[in-house]
Amino acid sequence: MHAFILSIGDELVLGQTLDTNSAWIAAQLSAVGCDIAGHLTVGDDQAATERAIRNACEQADVLIISGGIGPTEDDLTRQAIAAVMGVPLEENADWLAHIQSYFASRGRVMPDRNRVQALIPRGAQMIWNHAGTAAGVATTIGRTRVFSTPGVPKEMKAMFEREVLPYIRQHVGGAVILQKTLHTFGLGESALAERIGDLMKRGCNPSVGTTVANGLVSLRVNARFPTLDDARTKMGQTSDACRAALGDLIFGEDLDTLPQVVMRLLAEEKKTVATAESCTGGWLAKFLTDLPGSSANFYQGWVTYTNDSKVSQLGVSPATLAAHGAVSEPTAREMAIGARVRAKTDFALSITGIAGPDGGTTEKPVGTVCFGLAYEGGCQVRTFNMFGDRDMIRDRSTKMAMTMLRFHLLGKPLPF
Amino acid sequence: MHAFILSIGDELVLGQTLDTNSAWIAAQLSAVGCDIAGHLTVGDDQAATERAIRNACEQADVLIISGGIGPTEDDLTRQAIAAVMGVPLEENADWLAHIQSYFASRGRVMPDRNRVQALIPRGAQMIWNHAGTAAGVATTIGRTRVFSTPGVPKEMKAMFEREVLPYIRQHVGGAVILQKTLHTFGLGESALAERIGDLMKRGCNPSVGTTVANGLVSLRVNARFPTLDDARTKMGQTSDACRAALGDLIFGEDLDTLPQVVMRLLAEEKKTVATAESCTGGWLAKFLTDLPGSSANFYQGWVTYTNDSKVSQLGVSPATLAAHGAVSEPTAREMAIGARVRAKTDFALSITGIAGPDGGTTEKPVGTVCFGLAYEGGCQVRTFNMFGDRDMIRDRSTKMAMTMLRFHLLGKPLPF
Repeated sequence: MHAFILSIGDELVLGQTLDTNSAWIAAQLSAVGCDIAGHLTVGDDQAATERAIRNACEQADVLIISGGIGPTEDDLTRQAIAAVMGVPLEENADWLAHIQSYFASRGRVMPDRNRVQALIPRGAQMIWNHAGTAAGVATTIGRTRVFSTPGVPKEMKAMFEREVLPYIRQHVGGAVILQKTLHTFGLGESALAERIGDLMKRGCNPSVGTTVANGLVSLRVNARFPTLDDARTKMGQTSDACRAALGDLIFGEDLDTLPQVVMRLLAEEKKTVATAESCTGGWLAKFLTDLPGSSANFYQGWVTYTNDSKVSQLGVSPATLAAHGAVSEPTAREMAIGARVRAKTDFALSITGIAGPDGGTTEKPVGTVCFGLAYEGGCQVRTFNMFGDRDMIRDRSTKMAMTMLRFHLLGKPLPF
Repeated sequence: MHAFILSIGDELVLGQTLDTNSAWIAAQLSAVGCDIAGHLTVGDDQAATERAIRNACEQADVLIISGGIGPTEDDLTRQAIAAVMGVPLEENADWLAHIQSYFASRGRVMPDRNRVQALIPRGAQMIWNHAGTAAGVATTIGRTRVFSTPGVPKEMKAMFEREVLPYIRQHVGGAVILQKTLHTFGLGESALAERIGDLMKRGCNPSVGTTVANGLVSLRVNARFPTLDDARTKMGQTSDACRAALGDLIFGEDLDTLPQVVMRLLAEEKKTVATAESCTGGWLAKFLTDLPGSSANFYQGWVTYTNDSKVSQLGVSPATLAAHGAVSEPTAREMAIGARVRAKTDFALSITGIAGPDGGTTEKPVGTVCFGLAYEGGCQVRTFNMFGDRDMIRDRSTKMAMTMLRFHLLGKPLPF
């Protein structure tokens, strides 16, 4: 069963408002095994809406429309549906009475403009709106079942769950779709794809795709099978195969975040961490304190943005700074060790680098970032060349520091 | 001139990821007076992509595609464009050399998979990607100019601004549209609207609307006139009227950010700042170091997440903590003063509060945040009740601290 999603509104088509309705509807539909042919957004324009409805009805079994059924002159969805059906609009007495009593219950008289919200194309069914004054419309055009819902997310969601979803469940023909996302950091998209190999081949079920966001590469696994048992088994096999190929490069699933995973590992081992940051300016500490309860495992952080503060606050030796510079492994080492001793924590992470856009040299170009991880009895230091602009370099650097700590907590060497 | 926007990706069509690209592109296009016929989203499916391209080319003068040009097997946009054009794909030697050198500069060999990113439909033009390995494609299909850009927002935006927008500007006729955004922090949307009054009435030209994002309330002023002179004059009058109504509540325009404005004020007065953070966990320092060159005015920050660290690092008195608690104006005062003395800066900002979701009490509910601003000869302290979840409370708190410093630098009292 294929669905098409149509959202209507000038504010959407002009990009003034993000269309969250279509994504929400799509997620609901795909969760029950309905395929999505596409989402289209058009403005408050009757001709464009009619064309969109005609096109959608040619390719989909069900069309879900949101928006364009308010009381104002730019709300034209009912008119467009009636025009495509080739029928007039008729006033629905039940809904008119409902709107009038809705206003009366608030001590007001129904504005005349709202009368239009009781108009339904002849032969279509009125859908009750439990959260507002816009009635929905259900009808059949050709082989396509059409549902018209409000644009206000709250009203749309209530109507969708009550009136649309039961229809979809009944007609979807049984497939179950399971989704899982596996998150990685540190390898590029293509390097990851090479390791996974045939799992990403087109046409596989479960299918495996990749998404890149904020330096993370995530694998999206979608399984579609007639029964939940099958879907679970196959999803398990494919995600196991991904894990076998990528090992600990996968740091989490679905809603997991890297800070969350690292803080969870620390909590499990009852360990504590401190931070000493230069170029990331406090961002690492911010990430580690994003979650409630982080004070049990994160004690303290320093943002030592100047050489003086690295010396006075963390005890970095002026000789080290003079000999190697602020962006160097010896400085990163002394920052991490100094932070760990002063914060009395099990671990300390340090970051010192050149976030740019200025300050790069031939030996140390923009993106050069040195990391330290101090632990009892030692300190690991590494240098990486981070790609991107200032914001990306700073963001990826915090993720690299967290990744160093994560692999240390796992008792494994960093895989890059 | 009519544009159509096509976004491609399974994660988009399934509703797993919100399509922010289409809205961004639409906003850019409408800002220069280009009409938008619609946005369509389809999955990683070559047949669906081909059909979408054909449909779009029937109704629009320009088609802008984002997504589907990565290195993996689910990236099929180039193949779809070539199929609609009826031409084969050809390897672009310039771009292949660029990708190879991109990997070489990182000490790596180009994975074989990335080779596909140098494929361009015969007769189409390659568009340079300054931020990644996916080359864009520009071509003409029928009467429609087609641009294919990456799905990664940062890469798409860079390519759009550099290669697509100049084409649009050149080919769009008629009215001049000017836009200006004025940013405020501290007052709610409706309080702001009351102060502005009739300027926000529907149907005005220039029009004034409000947008709320991350605790900032911004006024969007749009002027649409036949000539640039008219548009500039009217835009000036309306934005002057907004400024007259709101005064220093407006901290900046358009791309200005609050950290940028505060750091600019510090730079103008050659003053320096340090930070002492508890609940915000380093986020204030992160914001103040977002921009290059911040080391001239930001010296140092502390994240003192525990009582011990407030005492050992900032010299907060254990008696103060015992008598008033960590979240109190006396503690905020000692944190700010302690930070200023130790960092040897002109100013220091402190933040200590209850970000939640736990830890609130009747006297100090979640959202209670105390602020200190230490300066030569004194320290201002304030307490605010911040609204929202943990993330919002932390974010708004950094903005309130920056706003305290901003008004101090302007020599004016905080207006709330």
